[in-house]
Amino acid sequence: MIKVCVLGVGKVGIHLIHECINNPFVDLIQIYNRSVKGMELFKEMLPCTQSILELKKADLYIIALPDSILPTLDLNHLNGLVVHTSGTVPYASLKAKKRGVLYPPQSFTKEKKISFKQIPLCLETEFSTDYDLLDEFARKLSRVVYKVDQAKRQKLHLAAVFANNFGNRVMGIAYEICQENDLDFSILQPIIQETFLKAQIFPPHVSQTGPALRGDEKTIQKHFSQLKGTDLEVYKILTKSIQEKHGTEL
Amino acid sequence: MIKVCVLGVGKVGIHLIHECINNPFVDLIQIYNRSVKGMELFKEMLPCTQSILELKKADLYIIALPDSILPTLDLNHLNGLVVHTSGTVPYASLKAKKRGVLYPPQSFTKEKKISFKQIPLCLETEFSTDYDLLDEFARKLSRVVYKVDQAKRQKLHLAAVFANNFGNRVMGIAYEICQENDLDFSILQPIIQETFLKAQIFPPHVSQTGPALRGDEKTIQKHFSQLKGTDLEVYKILTKSIQEKHGTEL
Repeated sequence: MIKVCVLGVGKVGIHLIHECINNPFVDLIQIYNRSVKGMELFKEMLPCTQSILELKKADLYIIALPDSILPTLDLNHLNGLVVHTSGTVPYASLKAKKRGVLYPPQSFTKEKKISFKQIPLCLETEFSTDYDLLDEFARKLSRVVYKVDQAKRQKLHLAAVFANNFGNRVMGIAYEICQENDLDFSILQPIIQETFLKAQIFPPHVSQTGPALRGDEKTIQKHFSQLKGTDLEVYKILTKSIQEKHGTEL
Repeated sequence: MIKVCVLGVGKVGIHLIHECINNPFVDLIQIYNRSVKGMELFKEMLPCTQSILELKKADLYIIALPDSILPTLDLNHLNGLVVHTSGTVPYASLKAKKRGVLYPPQSFTKEKKISFKQIPLCLETEFSTDYDLLDEFARKLSRVVYKVDQAKRQKLHLAAVFANNFGNRVMGIAYEICQENDLDFSILQPIIQETFLKAQIFPPHVSQTGPALRGDEKTIQKHFSQLKGTDLEVYKILTKSIQEKHGTEL
């Protein structure tokens, strides 16, 4: 069994720890965090440490700590493979003998469990001799494992920000409009569901609808008059984006 | 059985016609369109007309024509209830004796069938005596029927534009980033699915993640450098929107 240490108990770390604890093919031998906070939950179940120097001998160390922390950790004393989970940081930012990346393009929320089986894992190692171990581990967790280099991983992360972070934010604005007007957000659930179902069947430009696509200037102006501040700016720029993509002139 | 005429064979019209044909509780007696195009498909199945004056006697006339056309139609000779399907236009724009609205906040694509059972239908009539007929019809089609007045319907439509049109567009930008970098868009399907699943469980602000939320200025700057034109503007304004909502300062 692959012996693993997980460093970090944030959103990604917590999900990884739960997955490793429950996965019969993985031996989670220790967790690390800078502060004791967040580790209490696991104290009775497995060894916890706040010291890098006390890390046990493992095959794989997975670092799920903030990007800014990664270059500050000295892990040169470890003989196992050290990987981070960031979409943007190169493995070269890690101070370790054997380095790599295990990037899950997924959005983790503490309140919601998620099965790793469906989460794509994007792998990279500095030395090809380390790749097999990381690949073997990743396939114990997920059905979808990809080899993705630094340049492509950064682009994938950027795309994920648009699809998830920004997709979520525009739904958030919709939610706020409903709240302010005493409308039940659940009325929009079917259209939200249809939006994402279509994105699984067609490229998004095929499913585009609405006043921006139709060049329906009267409706667009009506909407402008109902919005202000940043919501208005968001409306304007996404209308422009749709019209540039689809060739309708304002 | 409620006798119905559908006017218009665009995205909404086509879906309504199919629904009425297949619904055992509705008697679709005629369809109308300004041009013969789009009606050929139904020619053998039911009466089609290009003349408003040739409209048959029905209980309900549903107009699924562009917003700009609605005020130009003279339907004063009809004795049945005349409703449009627009999210923005008031029923008062219709020239008819009995007027109302049947607004489905849903995005219709010709290529994809959809069951009306899950589509919310938002109803309004000028005279309360006409409401029962519209309500009875709507409940033959859908499980979710709401009474929604003009002011609220406009807000709902605005919210739907954010959730669907803009949600779809940011997924479109993600798709384009993948295409340009030879990345399979399917790698993002799990995160897209999770985005919308979460929106069904939590208010969107609870599920917000990403560099904008974390105030991760280094990643944000890296992303800026990888984008240009309108995509960059979309990134900037949605980052600002997230940070204003969540109180992180740029």
